[in-house]
Amino acid sequence: MAKKVTFNIDKKKDFSTWYTEIVKEAELADLRYNVKGFLVFQPMSVLAMEKMYEIYEKKLQEKGHLPYWYPSVIPSSNFLTEKEHVEGFSPDVFWVTEYGNHQKLEEPLALRPTSETAFYQMFSLWLRSYKDMPFKTYQRAQVWRNETKATRPFIRSREFYWIEAHNAFSSLKEAEKQVKEDMETAKEVLHDRFGIPFLFFKRPQWDKFPGAVNTYAADALMPDGKVLQQPSTHLLGQNFSKAFDVKFKDKKGKDQYAFITCYGPAISRIFASMISIHGDNNGLVFPFEVAPFQIIIIPILLNKNDKEIIRKAKSLQKKLSKKYRVHLDLTDNKFGEKFYQWEMKGIPVRIEIGPKELSKNEVILFRRDTKTKKNVKINLLQKEIEKTGKDLTKNLIEKADKEFKNNIISISSLSELKKMKGKFAHVDFCSIDKDGEKCAAKIEKEGLEVRGTRIDVNEKPKGKCIVCGKEAKIVVYIAKSY
Amino acid sequence: MAKKVTFNIDKKKDFSTWYTEIVKEAELADLRYNVKGFLVFQPMSVLAMEKMYEIYEKKLQEKGHLPYWYPSVIPSSNFLTEKEHVEGFSPDVFWVTEYGNHQKLEEPLALRPTSETAFYQMFSLWLRSYKDMPFKTYQRAQVWRNETKATRPFIRSREFYWIEAHNAFSSLKEAEKQVKEDMETAKEVLHDRFGIPFLFFKRPQWDKFPGAVNTYAADALMPDGKVLQQPSTHLLGQNFSKAFDVKFKDKKGKDQYAFITCYGPAISRIFASMISIHGDNNGLVFPFEVAPFQIIIIPILLNKNDKEIIRKAKSLQKKLSKKYRVHLDLTDNKFGEKFYQWEMKGIPVRIEIGPKELSKNEVILFRRDTKTKKNVKINLLQKEIEKTGKDLTKNLIEKADKEFKNNIISISSLSELKKMKGKFAHVDFCSIDKDGEKCAAKIEKEGLEVRGTRIDVNEKPKGKCIVCGKEAKIVVYIAKSY
Repeated sequence: MAKKVTFNIDKKKDFSTWYTEIVKEAELADLRYNVKGFLVFQPMSVLAMEKMYEIYEKKLQEKGHLPYWYPSVIPSSNFLTEKEHVEGFSPDVFWVTEYGNHQKLEEPLALRPTSETAFYQMFSLWLRSYKDMPFKTYQRAQVWRNETKATRPFIRSREFYWIEAHNAFSSLKEAEKQVKEDMETAKEVLHDRFGIPFLFFKRPQWDKFPGAVNTYAADALMPDGKVLQQPSTHLLGQNFSKAFDVKFKDKKGKDQYAFITCYGPAISRIFASMISIHGDNNGLVFPFEVAPFQIIIIPILLNKNDKEIIRKAKSLQKKLSKKYRVHLDLTDNKFGEKFYQWEMKGIPVRIEIGPKELSKNEVILFRRDTKTKKNVKINLLQKEIEKTGKDLTKNLIEKADKEFKNNIISISSLSELKKMKGKFAHVDFCSIDKDGEKCAAKIEKEGLEVRGTRIDVNEKPKGKCIVCGKEAKIVVYIAKSY
Repeated sequence: MAKKVTFNIDKKKDFSTWYTEIVKEAELADLRYNVKGFLVFQPMSVLAMEKMYEIYEKKLQEKGHLPYWYPSVIPSSNFLTEKEHVEGFSPDVFWVTEYGNHQKLEEPLALRPTSETAFYQMFSLWLRSYKDMPFKTYQRAQVWRNETKATRPFIRSREFYWIEAHNAFSSLKEAEKQVKEDMETAKEVLHDRFGIPFLFFKRPQWDKFPGAVNTYAADALMPDGKVLQQPSTHLLGQNFSKAFDVKFKDKKGKDQYAFITCYGPAISRIFASMISIHGDNNGLVFPFEVAPFQIIIIPILLNKNDKEIIRKAKSLQKKLSKKYRVHLDLTDNKFGEKFYQWEMKGIPVRIEIGPKELSKNEVILFRRDTKTKKNVKINLLQKEIEKTGKDLTKNLIEKADKEFKNNIISISSLSELKKMKGKFAHVDFCSIDKDGEKCAAKIEKEGLEVRGTRIDVNEKPKGKCIVCGKEAKIVVYIAKSY
């Protein structure tokens, strides 16, 4: 018997249940794999994430990055070369120590938790002259971290899928320019293509990537009002080039250490933000471009011209597959059940074809975000789908932007901040350098975090630090975080 | 100073040197990474292999496979569940045993050398009824094997990149049909798209995948006359479904064990065959569709209209990039050096534009395989590139097929076989079941291997077994192997 699906969970009121249930019901990932914190990603997420990789990689290549595949393992000795880095990452590392019948390896190998210590030893072999730079690289890869925080599918797991870009420059200025470019790339991809609004921050000094001079990162808001960090970009300066001897001859023939930046958009985590932001109480709503299937075709079989309807459905599938990812549901579930299933799974466009439509040479076109139906003549179908897809994505972006804007509020007193629920607060603050750490610690006791100052706009404080009452030097944003 | 490249190595006479040097000079992979048997894949191979993945995955999806991403680690206990499998793979496994500050994990985790023991425990959770089948899945992934044989870049390394498809069926017949489909897929992709000729064999019983009922595999010929195994497909029957309890209710409601097949095209190894077969004494020659860059644009700067030439080159790049992967070489190397470089790297089409071409509104189009040049009006360029790309690939396939055919010979005596050099021998043989193993062992002493019988054609032996002289039951193919 076919299973009846009636997904109906209030996303705003009970986001945690909504998220857990949709991951399971929409078959995004199966958590029953028998290693804790590791999961099996299923087709409904993998098809979308593959498309997301494609879009992100294309954008990086357009901006001059070239792709590499580095080994997944990093010798213990490499890993230990940069002092702050090893302190930051050591607790999380999985170690490969044996092979075959449990013989010991000569040296333990880290399963990469991130790849700075793999990339930069190669940079030191490849870079010779200022002419070799800018040197812009990336890899698509999974990384492994033995997270001590609670894992949640796509948001935080012990193996996750990301892109890491690593770049070398002959001047600090160019490296700083790269940080700006990374931020723009995040906007062009996360916001403009996936519909995820975010703010881009310079992180406080106490919240930097281990080994970085400065860390910059995007924060998106989840429906429960907590922020989720999205791509971060790190100005590593010369820290790693000194540790790994990445030197070049400048225009005067003098040896210099290269300036390095790295950038890490995590595809599986971006997927988490995307489905959470666009979903509704009945399940997922995918932007048209990245949906696992963009179109679902459902034949309405009422024992009347069934064969002809199936033939027509197949011919539509074949035709539309030249341009779109199309799935034809020929299971023997009832069509009402199919409607529920594919709505819950967030497929943007549904095409229904039954005896009535067949006779009129048209189909019914259902659009997931607005849940509206319209009859479309078959000869106009392709054009209508194109338009519907664009409209749907545009609508999702606009809705998300509006919601995001509504959740950013200005707060000017500590008592008000303590009462804040599910918002992102714009706050006058003393400093994100070392001297601000004490005030930040007080805020952390309330379960809140100072996320940093914006670098895309220059925001001036109007009054005193919300915590210590001293003259505020900056404006920061404060929220609960994942 | 720009490096002058003059790659000129006789591929036929000294394939081993040719291969080693081209991997280095064309910057396909860097072997200096400091873990033995692991390498850094560079853009000139990654760009091509990404395209190869795309083509292979699209074909699998068209045939009803859906993509998954499984964890890279497999608990020791899973791995030990199928007896023959564990015996076959144990010597090769890398073990993750510790985390953080070298604390012990509760259970050692295998870095997957292959994923049967990860997939099928999930199959047992997912499959309930004959209606759930055929169940066709795959993942693109890397696998790790602590190879004891000598490693060679792309051909055999300790981390390699592949696709593994895993499928469950409700009958043996359907599973056997899948084996045929896998073979066709190999033909449609390896031969028709990448230009790699091969023969598809049923492997001898003594050369099966550990845990399989039967193994089928493609063998391609390398220029040194040794065969390199390409995609293999394994009929696992019910061996793994019994070990992992993959059961379903048949039409009568009775519990049955599923019939399982798996299929493993190794993208990095297919890349090795592809570059070896099509390369010439001056370096690589990529088929048009999978070339890292399909077109290289080289402006001829002679201090005459330089600015205008560069502007024109940039506008051509922009225009052609809508359809092709295009690289514009604006380094300050001399253009003669650029010609050498990109020829050696195998870029199929080169566009040269200098003052003369500019004035006539045309370009020079160079084609890598034939090394011919022609002048083309800019308004006809796109059409000419399309045609050239198709012709080039067709030419590569035809050349490869001819060469392959010439290297398959019939041999009817053992003494003749012993003298054979760099060929694939068609031989009458007693049996590839257990009773043929002794004869095969004798052949192995000569450094040769019995690769199996063909399943695409029904070849009848004409005489006696070439080794023992008994009535030959079958025709086998014998060659040296990697």
